[in-house]
Amino acid sequence: MKAARIVRVKEPLEIQTLETPKPRGSQVLIKVQSAGVCHSDIHLWEGGYDGPAGSFMKTTDRGVKYPLTPGHEVAGVIESMGEEVEGFTKNEKVLVFPWIGEGLCPACRIGEENLCDKPRSIGVYHDGGYAEYLLVPSYKYLIKLGDMDTDTSATLSCAALTAYGAVKNTHLRPADNVIIVGAGGLGLMAIQLAKAVTGARIISMDIDDEKLKVAKQNGADFTINSRNQDVTKSIMELTDNLGVDAIIDFVNASKTVETDMQILRRRARIVLVGLFGGALQLNLVTMPTRAYKIIGSYTGSLTDMIELVSLAKRRIIKPVVSNKFNLDQATEALTMLKEGKIVGRGIINP
Amino acid sequence: MKAARIVRVKEPLEIQTLETPKPRGSQVLIKVQSAGVCHSDIHLWEGGYDGPAGSFMKTTDRGVKYPLTPGHEVAGVIESMGEEVEGFTKNEKVLVFPWIGEGLCPACRIGEENLCDKPRSIGVYHDGGYAEYLLVPSYKYLIKLGDMDTDTSATLSCAALTAYGAVKNTHLRPADNVIIVGAGGLGLMAIQLAKAVTGARIISMDIDDEKLKVAKQNGADFTINSRNQDVTKSIMELTDNLGVDAIIDFVNASKTVETDMQILRRRARIVLVGLFGGALQLNLVTMPTRAYKIIGSYTGSLTDMIELVSLAKRRIIKPVVSNKFNLDQATEALTMLKEGKIVGRGIINP
Amino acid sequence: MKAARIVRVKEPLEIQTLETPKPRGSQVLIKVQSAGVCHSDIHLWEGGYDGPAGSFMKTTDRGVKYPLTPGHEVAGVIESMGEEVEGFTKNEKVLVFPWIGEGLCPACRIGEENLCDKPRSIGVYHDGGYAEYLLVPSYKYLIKLGDMDTDTSATLSCAALTAYGAVKNTHLRPADNVIIVGAGGLGLMAIQLAKAVTGARIISMDIDDEKLKVAKQNGADFTINSRNQDVTKSIMELTDNLGVDAIIDFVNASKTVETDMQILRRRARIVLVGLFGGALQLNLVTMPTRAYKIIGSYTGSLTDMIELVSLAKRRIIKPVVSNKFNLDQATEALTMLKEGKIVGRGIINP
Amino acid sequence: MKAARIVRVKEPLEIQTLETPKPRGSQVLIKVQSAGVCHSDIHLWEGGYDGPAGSFMKTTDRGVKYPLTPGHEVAGVIESMGEEVEGFTKNEKVLVFPWIGEGLCPACRIGEENLCDKPRSIGVYHDGGYAEYLLVPSYKYLIKLGDMDTDTSATLSCAALTAYGAVKNTHLRPADNVIIVGAGGLGLMAIQLAKAVTGARIISMDIDDEKLKVAKQNGADFTINSRNQDVTKSIMELTDNLGVDAIIDFVNASKTVETDMQILRRRARIVLVGLFGGALQLNLVTMPTRAYKIIGSYTGSLTDMIELVSLAKRRIIKPVVSNKFNLDQATEALTMLKEGKIVGRGIINP
Repeated sequence: MKAARIVRVKEPLEIQTLETPKPRGSQVLIKVQSAGVCHSDIHLWEGGYDGPAGSFMKTTDRGVKYPLTPGHEVAGVIESMGEEVEGFTKNEKVLVFPWIGEGLCPACRIGEENLCDKPRSIGVYHDGGYAEYLLVPSYKYLIKLGDMDTDTSATLSCAALTAYGAVKNTHLRPADNVIIVGAGGLGLMAIQLAKAVTGARIISMDIDDEKLKVAKQNGADFTINSRNQDVTKSIMELTDNLGVDAIIDFVNASKTVETDMQILRRRARIVLVGLFGGALQLNLVTMPTRAYKIIGSYTGSLTDMIELVSLAKRRIIKPVVSNKFNLDQATEALTMLKEGKIVGRGIINP
Repeated sequence: MKAARIVRVKEPLEIQTLETPKPRGSQVLIKVQSAGVCHSDIHLWEGGYDGPAGSFMKTTDRGVKYPLTPGHEVAGVIESMGEEVEGFTKNEKVLVFPWIGEGLCPACRIGEENLCDKPRSIGVYHDGGYAEYLLVPSYKYLIKLGDMDTDTSATLSCAALTAYGAVKNTHLRPADNVIIVGAGGLGLMAIQLAKAVTGARIISMDIDDEKLKVAKQNGADFTINSRNQDVTKSIMELTDNLGVDAIIDFVNASKTVETDMQILRRRARIVLVGLFGGALQLNLVTMPTRAYKIIGSYTGSLTDMIELVSLAKRRIIKPVVSNKFNLDQATEALTMLKEGKIVGRGIINP
Repeated sequence: MKAARIVRVKEPLEIQTLETPKPRGSQVLIKVQSAGVCHSDIHLWEGGYDGPAGSFMKTTDRGVKYPLTPGHEVAGVIESMGEEVEGFTKNEKVLVFPWIGEGLCPACRIGEENLCDKPRSIGVYHDGGYAEYLLVPSYKYLIKLGDMDTDTSATLSCAALTAYGAVKNTHLRPADNVIIVGAGGLGLMAIQLAKAVTGARIISMDIDDEKLKVAKQNGADFTINSRNQDVTKSIMELTDNLGVDAIIDFVNASKTVETDMQILRRRARIVLVGLFGGALQLNLVTMPTRAYKIIGSYTGSLTDMIELVSLAKRRIIKPVVSNKFNLDQATEALTMLKEGKIVGRGIINP
Repeated sequence: MKAARIVRVKEPLEIQTLETPKPRGSQVLIKVQSAGVCHSDIHLWEGGYDGPAGSFMKTTDRGVKYPLTPGHEVAGVIESMGEEVEGFTKNEKVLVFPWIGEGLCPACRIGEENLCDKPRSIGVYHDGGYAEYLLVPSYKYLIKLGDMDTDTSATLSCAALTAYGAVKNTHLRPADNVIIVGAGGLGLMAIQLAKAVTGARIISMDIDDEKLKVAKQNGADFTINSRNQDVTKSIMELTDNLGVDAIIDFVNASKTVETDMQILRRRARIVLVGLFGGALQLNLVTMPTRAYKIIGSYTGSLTDMIELVSLAKRRIIKPVVSNKFNLDQATEALTMLKEGKIVGRGIINP
């Protein structure tokens, strides 16, 4: 089978021909129809993340090994199955849950495999979906898609899942004011989800007026352009001088989080999601006196993904795919994403 | 009545003679028998807290007004009552809940008055218990003490309450490893409480071997002297190289929190309680990838205080009072506390 | 002032002239503009509820005293205020929270006054809003309505609040199937609310096709006429033979709850709300083996009501008022309601 | 290998010689050292449970198939392993989690396999530990015991687990009053656990003064003999006439639950655990007006069992084994248990 692989960081992906895996036990072989192109694939490609004070946190220090076939957002049809697989049939359309854990840690024991101590995520620690076929370790990680299309469904397993995990971690209630920082793919999906299941008042914040217009269409009650507007003044006006109850930051850079910390109501939750990197000078005394909670949010659980499929099936949320590529264009897809040229989500159709 | 008051910050408290208040409506006048001397009284006395990068956060910017009678840990007997007070009698022994809110904000509405948007705490925003009498705005803030003694009971309304709030915010479960940073009064009470109601494995951390010995007697399973021992190495050995599930930091200084961040298991909760101050250079990318939660914890609710009284009444927890002063010695009490000469809790008996 | 009062149970309400109360302390006098007519007013009028085995549970055994001015759903404008009232002005339009507690029990301490051990509810234990004026014991029980109209807003304090409390007690998640039994006023509001804040699949069940049509318009995904259809068969088909995850029963009669118990998935929650009465022969062994939860749900908290006002202000929920009466027609209003002639909610405009 | 099997209900178990299973994939073969004898084994032996109104609920209707080797409380050493097993070695001492689910239902997805829609429990739906060897479907269901003994450890997987699940479902807080009905093995363990992790006031209720004496030694604050004492009067005296906050009923018979319902505080939780059977005439109106919660509690999760092992390892709880049998005495063991002749727990050592 063909696969687009990162062989050396920062160099173009290589199209390699690998042996097609044969599933055994509870394994399933998926013929990939749609593989989402995600910002975190860029970090795999670049070999790391920006840490505090100009440092660089290498992916290899987190256990990533190259060559690697990226691709953790995968939907396709079942090609073949191990002898222990139950309840699935050949050619059935499925979505793959990629955030697989080792199975023995406390997180895995309660179904939070995405937060496993020793993760085995597909497309990160194991070869992923930038390929014609993907071997999934167990049928338990597959969710039936019925007549949903694979392109938009693929994005449910990371882009929407990360947005959903963040919204859940924010514990929003109907009278809360929440700022969603970043009106890109994840931000827009978070707006849709917060609208669908919380009843909170949603303030979308970005530096791009075009994106903010789309945010409003997706359900934001207010928008703020943090480049042009005085953020603190705007927020304080909107909130009777109290600050917001919660912020979900899909950028998570020094600059955005510094702003976040200025506009918080007492007891506020700040949910950090993005991987932009850098550091925050955190004022320690304000943490207890203001009773803030800073919460790191990473993807979501299999249960969360099942809920997303249910919401998408009923059209309560509507993921958007904007660009399609074939396998040979994997490097181009990552480059375009890096340069900010993909609005919504890019998909590789191998 | 006599009261020991902060008239000018950093200068000795003045013993003033004030008019004894007359309770009306649902107000109650308490004859103070015991008033705890708390670290946060020192911040009131000094006029503020250390912020990041050598800055100073003034109490007056948070709404404190001088002259002020400090004293938020108050137990005594009822002297007189307004006409709407129900269910209490003259001379009844009571503990005062000092963390009073305005009553209209979301926190107050669910009984978290200690986290009110516009707090009216006794001994902070209103005159407190370093005095012969204290006016409490409503009988709803009084808890009957029966035959418990007022000296140890007084400490339940802040020292024990802050420890309890922190333990609750940590959401400990029996197989968790938790570090409690600081083995002073609050740390020891947190050890007792974690022992009594969580079943977690408790690691006490301090820089003083004597205090660590006491920590062990109070229920710590392990102790670490962070001055003499390699903390990271010790913790990694204790936790199969995974790090701890949770840390409660009663110091909350740059140095302790920097150490905290090195020894955390994925999904760990770091609960910041102390008011030592300073700043942390927070690595932003690790927040989502490691799914950490940093939680500021400030005192506790009236319900929490009722639970503490119940635990203390049954001797499940045992607060310790070490030094007693009369009203004229208020400045001396604060000075001794500041110089680290009070082990346990100092109490003023007016 | 004029008031419509129950003097003797089951007899027509009397229009009496009472002295207009004068507010003092934190009390507020409201000029009633809208008072909702609620099913539970009928129970007050009839003097009780049907218990098991033909028994009758008297309201006087629960502490109700006659003569009583009913009316717990009250909106109006401020007429005058006691000297301690803050933050309100004369003529301001407000909604009254009627589920007032004594303030000292564990429920009150966490803002669940609606579940107080010794309740003091307006229109139940104290004179209510079937009158020209209503005395509210504290401004803390008033929520500002701004430019919302008082007729629909009045229904937020009981009809919508009871529906909301029930929806919250059901802990619905997006992939859950929930049956809402009864498509009257409360059922329809529960459908709107479940739609707005849960993402669950909603099945409306009633015996009236007309009402089920309205249920669909209000957001139900499926409807079942339990008079004409085989309920068990329909539900099992809809749920892969597993049963539903949750049921909210706004009737709560022997017959409906018996049906409920036949169509439950393992781990299901059954939330009982209605006051129709009677008894259920509960099979005890199935409770643990099937891990069911039966949850009684009674009105909602002040925080819940604030959230409802926020949702209604933004038109996310839309309460419906169908019939209006003046004070002299109070008996007529109750009679029509009893006879099932009011669809939506009846309102008295004194 | 030898196994003691139920071939026909109500007849003596047969000692059969079966082929010793060979583990493959992630399966593990355990050499059984200790197999607990549980009340629910008696129901398997008798073929069912008492339902309402003299009915009988057959085990075969719940999917049980005979012949069956009972035994779900199993501890032993690893005899051999499939090729995919990781992290375990031959002869390692382990405890088996028996409450295995199918893996695909919502309960399984969050680690509540004990509440699976289609359970595959060991010793219930699959052959269990009344045998020389037990085949466990995956090493993920094994917990290492280190130097703990297998006899007392075996009881952690059902007796203690059921008690723990019930205590957790009761959501006890320090100032709560809880009645634990039944002072047999499960009741005593629940007392120990409530003592260890909740801080609540514990009232043990039974009809046997000897057992109540043991209950007191295990940590009960009060005891009530419901045969000799006026239960309602005693409870009302203990609780200021309010009733208890919670009841855990390990008998769950008509008679005990009828009593339970008379002594509840508003908002009380009643947790039903026992399988004695029968029915309750449930007064429907009181459910909402009193805001009661009736909660069925069935065993516990793998996470719960891990927490129990941690508590037992540190001697915070102390399971008691009272009678030991060999495999040939299986029928005798069940008979003695049925006749109430086993205090604590009986263990079969094959």
